[in-house]
Amino acid sequence: MSDFMARVYVTPRPSVRDPEGSTIMEGLHQLGFSGVQMVRAGRYFEIMLQAGDSHQAEQTVDLMCRKLLANPVVEQYRFDLQLEATSE
Amino acid sequence: MSDFMARVYVTPRPSVRDPEGSTIMEGLHQLGFSGVQMVRAGRYFEIMLQAGDSHQAEQTVDLMCRKLLANPVVEQYRFDLQLEATSE
Repeated sequence: MSDFMARVYVTPRPSVRDPEGSTIMEGLHQLGFSGVQMVRAGRYFEIMLQAGDSHQAEQTVDLMCRKLLANPVVEQYRFDLQLEATSE
Repeated sequence: MSDFMARVYVTPRPSVRDPEGSTIMEGLHQLGFSGVQMVRAGRYFEIMLQAGDSHQAEQTVDLMCRKLLANPVVEQYRFDLQLEATSE
């Protein structure tokens, strides 16, 4: 078994309204950051997991995203995987 | 002026309790993902901004993080910058 670190990025789909991002953009403008043109607000997860190999880890994280971490109707996700340690 | 895309990652400091991450880990275990050993839940922002150059963009995004996007007492942040377009 190996230990993997998965970094998961969940963002609103481009066609979906993002009220949190809009609110943050307004806040940045009010603070004087006038150069800000667009803000999209999403979520970020760091997940340490054990898996037999990187292919299995990738399949597992993809399933986690679809079952719990993201709402595929309105959100999209991507992730990267990093091998942390390998043991017997 | 140039357009930059900043990708900002905000996570709880390692020494700070992360109840959202703990809840998500329990949920993953209940769904059968028994290999999950740790979950940290954070936030992710995509910000399009105009700046004179990459150094100015970096300073601006760092200030945004400290003033609005992250709470430095309990959160840490990092970001990367990508040049999208340059105009007159």
